[in-house]
Amino acid sequence: MTRRGTLYGLGLGPGEPDLMTVRAHRLLASATHVAFFRKAGRPGQARRIVDGLLPAGAVEYAMEYPVTTEIALDDPAYNEALSAFYAESARQLRSLSDAGHDVVILCEGDPFFYGSFMHLYTRLVDTHPVQVVPAITGMSGAWTATGQPITWGDDVLTVLMGTLPEARLARHMADSDALVVMKIGRHIEKVRRALTAAGRLEEAWLVEFATMPGQKVVRLADAQGRIAPYFSIVLVHGQGRRP
Amino acid sequence: MTRRGTLYGLGLGPGEPDLMTVRAHRLLASATHVAFFRKAGRPGQARRIVDGLLPAGAVEYAMEYPVTTEIALDDPAYNEALSAFYAESARQLRSLSDAGHDVVILCEGDPFFYGSFMHLYTRLVDTHPVQVVPAITGMSGAWTATGQPITWGDDVLTVLMGTLPEARLARHMADSDALVVMKIGRHIEKVRRALTAAGRLEEAWLVEFATMPGQKVVRLADAQGRIAPYFSIVLVHGQGRRP
Repeated sequence: MTRRGTLYGLGLGPGEPDLMTVRAHRLLASATHVAFFRKAGRPGQARRIVDGLLPAGAVEYAMEYPVTTEIALDDPAYNEALSAFYAESARQLRSLSDAGHDVVILCEGDPFFYGSFMHLYTRLVDTHPVQVVPAITGMSGAWTATGQPITWGDDVLTVLMGTLPEARLARHMADSDALVVMKIGRHIEKVRRALTAAGRLEEAWLVEFATMPGQKVVRLADAQGRIAPYFSIVLVHGQGRRP
Repeated sequence: MTRRGTLYGLGLGPGEPDLMTVRAHRLLASATHVAFFRKAGRPGQARRIVDGLLPAGAVEYAMEYPVTTEIALDDPAYNEALSAFYAESARQLRSLSDAGHDVVILCEGDPFFYGSFMHLYTRLVDTHPVQVVPAITGMSGAWTATGQPITWGDDVLTVLMGTLPEARLARHMADSDALVVMKIGRHIEKVRRALTAAGRLEEAWLVEFATMPGQKVVRLADAQGRIAPYFSIVLVHGQGRRP
């Protein structure tokens, strides 16, 4: 019987290639099978990060998200479409493992911190060998880009998604020292209103494309009317004890 | 006039040497001057991580924390002792930079996420060239060690220090989906009481020495009476939307 191949959930970090780990770099340099998520018709951010790092002859598997833009997030059909997609992607990965192939699955940021990989992970880990390689989170790339520490001393840090209801955002924003808000995109005006309600707007920064080409760091209050791209993070720095 | 040397705040990640970044590895391999914090009489965790990675002849500067165990945290003398220590360490780094030396300052985890480096950073960045190299946080090493994703979908994640008052801990624990509690040590019983008050004790994991020799992952409820070492993190995983 063929030894099953290992499926690596490989964190790539925030975007700049030399911010991936030594372990990730080594696994990429010897990869024979590489899988990654992307939107249909797009090159995909994870794949872009490893440009020039894969060996010639590595076989690539693009896992293309189903088009769900016309389905509301809370419509059961949305979850069903995604669920079928993850099930099919997992099936393909299992068959590669069963054939004895190690597969490197590219993950933006850290594989266990939000993201899509974990939906494969839960479908694979009970039956096939899976290894997760942690990585620098996108938010760490963002706070480094601001040139200011995010948390000091006993600061409380809360990580929020821009997709949450405005009242819940505002409540956490008022009750935390440092803040990270991800999944901004078209939610930016809601995030701005919630920060204003919490009295934190003046302290907030908007970071776009942290550690990537096109990186931009601006005060959120100075970015009125700005449409934030997907790779945007809003930050409020903590002000804890500093001897 | 000599060109001033660059002071690198070099994040080393959670502990395992191949979980540092390619950039950190390259800077270490060519380092001529290396500074790091440690307790007096101890080798220091940051220095241990780079064992065998520094070039022969690299000059090392151990910055030894003042002994403050007999001073209460809220006594002004505590802050004064630390402040004088950071001022003196920064003075030494400035003089190395002025002499044209690049200095690699070793940081456990990510330099801008809690930690000591930022107290040097604020004393150096206005006058001398400083570059920060982000890294995997200790908490990311810890959730990877549990083999479970920490956050899904729209989960709210709150990062807390075990040094906070019990009531504030319990309030955040009840109001967040996923939790990370750091600086556990002798605060473990308070953290356990706060989790119990918030109804979250049964979901909590204790991770000791994540990604390091001696790594241990146990349910916190099964670790009654355990004295947690300094490198301990308590985690509660989020349970967000999973298609």
